[in-house]
Amino acid sequence: MRSFAGRDILSLKDFSRDEFFRVFQVADDLRPFARDRRNSDLLKNKTLLTAFYQPSTRTRLSHEAAMHRLGGQVLGFSDSKMTRAGDFYQESIKDTFHMLEYYADVIAIRHFQQGAPAEAAKWASVPVINCGDGWGEHPTQVLTDLYTILLEKGTLDGLTYLLVGDMRMRTMHSILYALSQFDARAIVVGPPDMSLLPEFKVELDELNVDYVEAGDVRDVINEADIIYMEPVVQADYTASRQERTGTTGLTPPEYVVSRQLLREKAKRSSIILHSLPRMDELPADVDATRHQRYWAEAFNGVVLKMSLLSLILGAAE
Amino acid sequence: MRSFAGRDILSLKDFSRDEFFRVFQVADDLRPFARDRRNSDLLKNKTLLTAFYQPSTRTRLSHEAAMHRLGGQVLGFSDSKMTRAGDFYQESIKDTFHMLEYYADVIAIRHFQQGAPAEAAKWASVPVINCGDGWGEHPTQVLTDLYTILLEKGTLDGLTYLLVGDMRMRTMHSILYALSQFDARAIVVGPPDMSLLPEFKVELDELNVDYVEAGDVRDVINEADIIYMEPVVQADYTASRQERTGTTGLTPPEYVVSRQLLREKAKRSSIILHSLPRMDELPADVDATRHQRYWAEAFNGVVLKMSLLSLILGAAE
Amino acid sequence: MRSFAGRDILSLKDFSRDEFFRVFQVADDLRPFARDRRNSDLLKNKTLLTAFYQPSTRTRLSHEAAMHRLGGQVLGFSDSKMTRAGDFYQESIKDTFHMLEYYADVIAIRHFQQGAPAEAAKWASVPVINCGDGWGEHPTQVLTDLYTILLEKGTLDGLTYLLVGDMRMRTMHSILYALSQFDARAIVVGPPDMSLLPEFKVELDELNVDYVEAGDVRDVINEADIIYMEPVVQADYTASRQERTGTTGLTPPEYVVSRQLLREKAKRSSIILHSLPRMDELPADVDATRHQRYWAEAFNGVVLKMSLLSLILGAAE
Repeated sequence: MRSFAGRDILSLKDFSRDEFFRVFQVADDLRPFARDRRNSDLLKNKTLLTAFYQPSTRTRLSHEAAMHRLGGQVLGFSDSKMTRAGDFYQESIKDTFHMLEYYADVIAIRHFQQGAPAEAAKWASVPVINCGDGWGEHPTQVLTDLYTILLEKGTLDGLTYLLVGDMRMRTMHSILYALSQFDARAIVVGPPDMSLLPEFKVELDELNVDYVEAGDVRDVINEADIIYMEPVVQADYTASRQERTGTTGLTPPEYVVSRQLLREKAKRSSIILHSLPRMDELPADVDATRHQRYWAEAFNGVVLKMSLLSLILGAAE
Repeated sequence: MRSFAGRDILSLKDFSRDEFFRVFQVADDLRPFARDRRNSDLLKNKTLLTAFYQPSTRTRLSHEAAMHRLGGQVLGFSDSKMTRAGDFYQESIKDTFHMLEYYADVIAIRHFQQGAPAEAAKWASVPVINCGDGWGEHPTQVLTDLYTILLEKGTLDGLTYLLVGDMRMRTMHSILYALSQFDARAIVVGPPDMSLLPEFKVELDELNVDYVEAGDVRDVINEADIIYMEPVVQADYTASRQERTGTTGLTPPEYVVSRQLLREKAKRSSIILHSLPRMDELPADVDATRHQRYWAEAFNGVVLKMSLLSLILGAAE
Repeated sequence: MRSFAGRDILSLKDFSRDEFFRVFQVADDLRPFARDRRNSDLLKNKTLLTAFYQPSTRTRLSHEAAMHRLGGQVLGFSDSKMTRAGDFYQESIKDTFHMLEYYADVIAIRHFQQGAPAEAAKWASVPVINCGDGWGEHPTQVLTDLYTILLEKGTLDGLTYLLVGDMRMRTMHSILYALSQFDARAIVVGPPDMSLLPEFKVELDELNVDYVEAGDVRDVINEADIIYMEPVVQADYTASRQERTGTTGLTPPEYVVSRQLLREKAKRSSIILHSLPRMDELPADVDATRHQRYWAEAFNGVVLKMSLLSLILGAAE
């Protein structure tokens, strides 16, 4: 296993099975600090820079909370319009990251453009964490998802993962890459105009990911151990909202996981994850069911990022 | 007296006389740290999250400054447009606070909607501080006001409080609730279309608040010990500026406290408080008069919030 | 030499030769902390407030990074629209700084209006650092520039400084003031409608600054030891973008420093500084030449601000 120290976290395609479990193991080790709401000084001398070119609450704040819990400092920006990088200068990633690398020891970037974090990593001498890049990937979210599943199920193997939503979204890419490392079966359900792109399917085949496509969540939910959801109405993955594709309005019933459907067809042991925010594909009355695990993800997200930051900053092995 | 540890600060209607004085006593105890510009480590392991859905300078920064002075950490957002909560997802308070509760030990919220902090407190397991909710309340501002009065006058009893401005505003609600706990007389002066709402008057009667309404500050200023002001032109208490009610332009003379009026009619010992920012209801040439105390409020505000944070985080008794 | 403790940094016109070298000496002393990426606790009890009324990446974040490296705290705002100072209240500098002075031990301000930092310093009892004021000055940027030159050349004397760009810009004002303290010769090249203002030329003459104006960088680049650049297309120095003057589109060749021009005419030992962000006046293929020093400025900027903050907060002598 390669060392995590100094490593960029750009894609889950990079991750070996051992590496996933290394991250989860360190998360378990650090978990008591978050649970007991006390701070460590593991990263006392370290600073995280958050370069968020798109709005975020969960991803940015969970990285910041993780850094605080480990005794480190945080600076950065949460809106590109507040920076010279985002105003009419449209400063290049190269120029921006040749500067930012001196302000911190690790940089977390969210960008509306696919590939921007990889470009940033080319120019910054410090590690770069991809916190979501356009339609690309969202590794830290999916690491949090998988860690949550592991805590609930005790394993990531032998499970059927039902993915519901816009299959072009970055979380869907990252989770399907990740599943290549586990004995997992995936069923993907999304609107025809939001299905997996042909070039991505080629990659999944090369990685031997076991997946099938289905048209209606109601037909397949009975097989699912894990129900993993994203909205199909209005997503925010392009620079301009005008360019955004996809339907607006109500989610068609083929992509809705309702309380009634869960009661009638889902396995009692199945759990629902959603990276949130949600639209109407996951009605609020599901929150009180046995299946709901998306609240737990907020806490697990802090712990997971504590692990990741410690590892890439060389404070954990 | 109920313990403050773990308690939400949503309304001053909740506060007993003893509780007010407890907060002021702890403020006095912590005052030397702020005065001497040195830091304590009382809240070393604690984190404050500022969830500000509306712009703020004083309220947000005074909470942050208080937290820094006590050795704690701060994270959050200062503009809802930078978060998924504020973009087109319009994420619910429930979904947002089921996440935020894991990122910090106490959450300070400002929201354009009355009742949002109470809704947030329903879902967050950590204490929630209302930093202004639409037309609702603004408890931390009014605690600062009362603490300033106490420092100046040595008492909160036996005083006549002249309240001038838009009587529908959140500070006016909080101060009138608070006055129920003191031997206080209030005179309220505001434009007819900005007067106390009937349902609020019913509450004041139930609380035995001693108040009268008057039409012109020039007729009653001679009776005032405390002159407490808010603008009557253009306030920012609705989600959309288009929905805003109230006059624009110049403040009518009935609601202006000028230097000349102070010289001619006010008690020499009367003091002026204003939560700021101001429009023209309080001309700048009043700043150099004996009555001005609004600058002192910025300092007192930090001290007061040091007290409040220490109390609800269980670091002071 | 006046002590730096408690001093406002508003203009480089204030700086004596000895003072420049004092700042650079302390920067050298503190440099190892930044180089080795470890933190000092020199400013452990101190807080910096960043009051940025205009977007910034480098200037704001380098001050924050410096403060973190010295163990201090940071709070503030990076966009005036997020504050009551910047919304429709248009709160006065006086009202705003009579508040902010209580929230921190030093305030760094960027403002679209020339003179705003001086106005702020009038009302705040804590030191104020001008981080760029409209068309006025930009002292911390130019201190970083000069420190970079000193590190590269070992001296600031006996050099020819070629200034290229919009001569009305704040960096140009600050560097020309600064050169009055050194045995320096300046050549200034900018579009006729962006030339040095008559009243500023009078000042330069009074300060005995040795400068000449030229019309085309291609005619004079051979004389330059230092090539100091700013864009001539679209600058962001007025409150409203609509009010902005200056050409848009491509930079005329008279003001472009290209790789070819450098190869053909520049001294091999000449170095290029640019405060960035850039437009097309400095093409990206110059980055890999022997002349490029603008990346180094990001690191030097943190060190320089560590020095400045330590000096004005009385932690260095």
